[in-house]
Order: sequence, then C-alpha cells, then structure tokens
Amino acid sequence: MIRRLLVVLALLTAWPAYAVTVERVVSPGGIEAWLVQDHSNPILAVEIAFAGGAAIEAKSGTAHMMSALLDEGAGPYDSQAFQGKLDDLAISLGFDAGKDRLRGHLKTLTEHRDTAFDLLRLAMTQARFNKEPVERIRGQILAGLAREQQSPEAQASKAWYRAAFPDHPYGRPLKGDVASIKAITTAELKAFAKTWMTREGMVIGVAGDITPAELGPLLDRTFAALPARHPPINVPEAAAAGGRTELVTLDNPQSVAMFGSAGIKRDDPDWWPAYVVNYILGGGGFSSRLTEEVREKRGLAYSVYSYLMPFDRGGIIIGGVATENARINTSLDLIKAEWHRMAEQGPTETELANAKTYLTGSFPLSLDSTAAIAGLMVTMQTDKLGLDYLERRSAFIEAVTLADTRRAAKRLLDADALTIVVAGRPTP
Amino acid sequence: MIRRLLVVLALLTAWPAYAVTVERVVSPGGIEAWLVQDHSNPILAVEIAFAGGAAIEAKSGTAHMMSALLDEGAGPYDSQAFQGKLDDLAISLGFDAGKDRLRGHLKTLTEHRDTAFDLLRLAMTQARFNKEPVERIRGQILAGLAREQQSPEAQASKAWYRAAFPDHPYGRPLKGDVASIKAITTAELKAFAKTWMTREGMVIGVAGDITPAELGPLLDRTFAALPARHPPINVPEAAAAGGRTELVTLDNPQSVAMFGSAGIKRDDPDWWPAYVVNYILGGGGFSSRLTEEVREKRGLAYSVYSYLMPFDRGGIIIGGVATENARINTSLDLIKAEWHRMAEQGPTETELANAKTYLTGSFPLSLDSTAAIAGLMVTMQTDKLGLDYLERRSAFIEAVTLADTRRAAKRLLDADALTIVVAGRPTP
Repeated sequence: MIRRLLVVLALLTAWPAYAVTVERVVSPGGIEAWLVQDHSNPILAVEIAFAGGAAIEAKSGTAHMMSALLDEGAGPYDSQAFQGKLDDLAISLGFDAGKDRLRGHLKTLTEHRDTAFDLLRLAMTQARFNKEPVERIRGQILAGLAREQQSPEAQASKAWYRAAFPDHPYGRPLKGDVASIKAITTAELKAFAKTWMTREGMVIGVAGDITPAELGPLLDRTFAALPARHPPINVPEAAAAGGRTELVTLDNPQSVAMFGSAGIKRDDPDWWPAYVVNYILGGGGFSSRLTEEVREKRGLAYSVYSYLMPFDRGGIIIGGVATENARINTSLDLIKAEWHRMAEQGPTETELANAKTYLTGSFPLSLDSTAAIAGLMVTMQTDKLGLDYLERRSAFIEAVTLADTRRAAKRLLDADALTIVVAGRPTP
Repeated sequence: MIRRLLVVLALLTAWPAYAVTVERVVSPGGIEAWLVQDHSNPILAVEIAFAGGAAIEAKSGTAHMMSALLDEGAGPYDSQAFQGKLDDLAISLGFDAGKDRLRGHLKTLTEHRDTAFDLLRLAMTQARFNKEPVERIRGQILAGLAREQQSPEAQASKAWYRAAFPDHPYGRPLKGDVASIKAITTAELKAFAKTWMTREGMVIGVAGDITPAELGPLLDRTFAALPARHPPINVPEAAAAGGRTELVTLDNPQSVAMFGSAGIKRDDPDWWPAYVVNYILGGGGFSSRLTEEVREKRGLAYSVYSYLMPFDRGGIIIGGVATENARINTSLDLIKAEWHRMAEQGPTETELANAKTYLTGSFPLSLDSTAAIAGLMVTMQTDKLGLDYLERRSAFIEAVTLADTRRAAKRLLDADALTIVVAGRPTP
C-alpha cells in the first residue's frame, strides 16, 4: 500500500487563481519523492540529488568525470546500445556533479516511463565504465580544459576559488586539472559511483504525467537496489579567505574579474534579508546598483553582477565584471565603493519595495517546464524548505524590514574582505 | 468586436487524453495571431516572424546586427533604461535574424503584460540605434567573429554555405564578416528595421495566460503602428552547388566536416517521406545508420548527423562529422557509401516502422514550455501547415509507405553531388 500525504497548496497567495500541488509520495519500500502532477502533456521529469559531490573526491574531477560516464553504458548495454535506446525512445538522461552533491536528470514520454526508470536504475547501479567511453570522455574533458586556458571567465573563476579556499576542497576545480584527469583510474570512477550514490541523503523530485499510485512502485524498482548508506562526509566547515588579490595574465583585450567573500548558509536566519540586499546590490541585472554605477553612469563595463552561493559547509557572496583592460581597475574601485556604501547605509525604502515586488512576482517564471518543477522539488528538500514552501515564499520576502536589510548588509558586505582575481592584461 | 474562429483539436489521435487547442484570433484592426491558451501559470509567450531576413541585406550581417540592437534603447528609453525596465519586470524580449526571416520573442508575467507588449512595440517601431549600443554591439560581433576563427565547427559551416551558394545570398555568413561589420552604418541599420519589419507577411504566435478577448486589442496596440507593406523580396531561387570539396586548414587535433547537397522545400509533396528517410539515415542520433556505421562499427567519429533545412528559396540536406585528423577521410568515405546505399535501396520495413513510432511519439516533448508552443504557432503559419496541423501530423507520418521512402531517397540522396568542406588538418 502506498502511504501518501496529500497537501494542496496555493502557489502564491498573490495569485490565488494559479495553484501548484506538491505531494509527498512514500513508496511501499519507504522511498520518498516530492511530486507535482501535471497531466496536460504526456511528459514526465525526474530530478535526483545524492549527498556527496566533488568536495569528497580524492582526485580533483573524479565526481564530474564519473557523472559523465553513467550514461555511457550500463547493465547489458554498451555505450552505443545505451545511448541508442535513449535516442530511440526520446528519453533524456544525464548526471552532473556539484561541490556538495551529484544530481541526475530524467525526462521521458509517459509511454516509455517504465523503460526510462529502468535505464536510470542501470546507470546508477550498473554503469560499466568500459575502456572506450572512459578514454573518450577523458579526452573530451582534457580538450575542454585546454579551451578554458583561453577563457578569461573560466580562468578568473578557477583562480578565485583557489585563492578563497586554499586549504579546502571547495577551492579545487570541479572538472579537475590536466594532471588529475590523466591520473584518474577506472577503479576510482567505479568506487566513487558505488560509494556515493546511496539512499542516504538522496532526494527525489518528480513533475508531470504520473500519479502517486503509479510512482510508488517505480520508486522501489528504481532506487531500492542502491546501497542504504554512504561513509561519513568529512568535509570541514569552509570560510572563504578574505582580502586576497591575484592576477592571471591572459593576452586578451578584455579583463574579467571575480570578487567575493564569505557569505551565509541557506538555513541562516538572515537568508531572506541577505537575498534582498544582494538583489539590490548586484543581483537585479540592469536595475542593480552595481550596473547603475559601473555600467551606466561611467560606461565602464559590459556586465557586472553578484550572487549568493550557499554551499553546505559555508556560503559565499561572489560577483563578476567584464570590461576593457584599461577600465578594470577603475571598475573594481567603484564596485568596492558600492559594497561599502551598502554595508554602511543599506538599501532605501523604495529599493526594498521594488525588490520585494520583483522577487515575489517573478517566481512563476521559474516554473515553466516539468524539468524546472522537478528541480525545484529537489531543492526544496536539500535546502529543507518544507512541503509548504511555495505557499510561504512570498511571506518570507514580504516580512523583510529595512532594519533587517541593514543588519544583513553590514554583516555580509565588507569591501576590505573581498578576494579579487583579475584575468586579462589590465592597464593602470 | 473580435471575430474569432475557435477550433478545438485533439493534440494527436494517438493520445486522446491530451488536448491542445489552437485558436485563430483576429483583432478588431484585422491583425491575426494563433493562440494556445494555458492558464495554469501566470506566464505568456509571444513569437513573431517577419518576411525578409539576411538574404535581402546589402551588407552581410546587417539583419543580425540590427536584431541585436532592437532591445538596446527605444522610444523614450536609452539602452540602460530599456534593459532596466525589462529586468525590473522580469520581461524577456529579444530578436534574431535567419536567412529568410527576422524573429522576435517575448515572455512576460501576466501582471506586466501591457508593459511587455508596449516595450515590444517600441523595439519594433522606435528603436534608437544610439552610438554607444551600436559600437558596443559591433565590438561584440567582431569579438565573436575572432573567436569563430578558431572554431572548426564555425569555419566548416561558413565555408560550406560559401561553396554551396557561391552566387546566392544564402552563401553569406549570417553574422557578417569583419569588413562588412565594420562598414555597416547606423542609417543602414535603421533603414533595414523600418523597411522589413512590416505587417506584410508578419505572423504571430501566442501561448499561455491570455484569452482571445484580451489578446485582440493588444495586437492592435502593438502591431498597427508597423508599416503595412515591405518592398518586393528579390531573392532568387537557390540550388545548392554539388560535388565541390574544400579544405579550411586549422591547427587542431580534430577535424570537422560538413557535407550536403540540394534538398527539398517544406511544401514539397515528398516532405514527409524525405523527413523519414533523413531520420533513418542521420537524423536519429545513436540509432541512425550514419552513427551505427561510422561511430559504432568502426569507432571512427565522435558524432555524425544529418538534417533537412528547407529555406524559402530552396532546401538542402546537410550533415556534419567530427573526428581525429587521421580518421576524417575514412569517415567521409563511409558516409558517402551510406548515402549511396540509402539512395539505391531505401530503408527496411523495420527501420520505417521504428522511425514512424519515434517521429509521432516524441512530438509532445517539443511542447514543454509556453515559448516552445508560441514558436510552433509561428512555424505552423510560415510553413502553411494549417490550423489543424497538430491533429494531422501523425497521419502524415503514418501514411508514408516504403515505396514513398525509396522514391524520396533516390531523389534526395546523391553521394556524388555532396559538397564537402573539412576544417582541420586531415592526414590521409
């Protein structure tokens, strides 16, 4: 029997006409998924997250390379047969690795649902890691790393994480480096898959054309074969190192800079005030203070932005700017000045009101595909937002006061603590 | 009063449970749009196509550069103010140019619908082409062209069109070349916008949270200000030149080849048989004959594919293959052999049956967002597929016989007529 808790939620109190229903489905075998049913189209999307990502790998790039190989042959199928089956049935299946988590994505037509879940199960539990795909994917990753050598964005980003987390796995590049990629063995790839894709800490989101009664047995068939537990995750807490500056010299007419410092975690009580502050400072595109000051008033940069990144072991606030070599240093001075001004004074009443309107109002745009909704169902679980998050999200934002934003800004923003990396050939 | 023809269509006879309703909405002022209502989310997508694209431009790249500037300041707003308004209200608005048509895309929340249509109107009728955005976009396009110099894919594609259409505008690169981009004047950009964005030949697709009664007046407010007519489109018929070979030498460990010949137009009676033949030959990913022979049996290539491209003045069938320099010539020999075998024998009964299953069954995957549905509403009009196309599409495919595919294959596929371009440093 399928135990099932049915919770019907208005999507946002502001739009009572639109409703999304989030259901918690628990299979006969005890495997849980969060589901949003939508039977308007015969399509189904599944998103899975596993506890344990690149931060726990011994050789940099192992999680990423392993993820790229899960759909390159599994069970009775070699790479060609597996990919052929996906193509024949129009099934999308793929995996990728973040610093804290592995994620899997599945999308299928209703009529091929059983086969799709079966291929997902094979990829998670019986991936082959045959020599041909391992060497082909290794070659593709090495070619990608070679291309990144010429990319100021990639170089600035990698150097920033290295500088901010010199002694923490968060500082290592997700896709590895040439030496580590060449050194990763097939045995290590297999061991990583077997050790870290487990039911412990796994969360599942589903959206589309399936009922809870149909989903329950599929969950058991697909996920019960995974190991129950993974080893302890020994990733220490991480505080981004502040105040460092670094230059990566690249022969390029433009420079790209990344700037950032320690931030806050997703479960911090100041999350929503900090989220609003960042929107006003650098998260709001053309209406943000950074764009207004750096791009518009002075015409200095092509783009400038900032965002919060709440890793499990420590958050960061990080941003970027791209401009001509002759303008990068002036741009960075202006960014530091805006950082400081926001820390000292916080936003204005008008800025706060506009931010609330935007951040509550634009949310439905993120729900425009089954895959996006399945992904949100996963994030709601990994971030412990609760089954009623969609109903409460607007209220969280509306509750932020000017005093909250000032407190959060002072706590979050310290211009002197920014670690700054420039990739390019800046002129004074 | 809004005249309105309401046609309710089952999406596909194979799935009577799922229904998409295509409505033809004609505004009080006589402007027509095809609409699929979906009120489950407060989102709306609009897609517009104008007759006249890069094929009618005097300087190569004019249509593309003009399209990139339409949202960079219009009416009372300069670039920053216009982009700021889009960002503040979470409105996506953009334009791009194809060889035969310009297209515009709009996506908005219901609550900002009126402003969104207003910004669309300003972009189409009062774009500013101020000096700052013109020079910035020119710089971005030139930087993109410089990057493409190192891309074997881009070099092979540009060289193929040049070789296949030496005396026809289809042979010119969509994004222009360094000389043409430097030479385009602001007056030419303005003239192109004013001359070619007209109501003549314009088609509009809409999907999402709007009723016909709401859409009608918006159509008039938004599109009535456009000129009624454009000049005659003097683009001659185009037949791709066959049998040419060309090498673009690039220092790269891999080579990319493009191969193709004259194809058929979208309104050709053999369209569906040809579509099925191409799926079996090179359109079906890992289950296509080209992938099976070139990639799997011989392990020669990373990827190989083909597709039909039905331009207004002449169709082509074109494909690509990427592999190591030492393997590109053997790969091309195998591709030509498969081309010849399909022309001589056509597909098997089993291949035809599998192709029909895939091509009818996978169609709902293309309807998974409001923007995708709005785009389909435009294609159904530009390609003259009829208001009941969604209902009839499966029947068109099911009706294709083995004799049809053999006739179409013999007509479409001539290995000796392939024009082939290789970008890389092939070894014999």
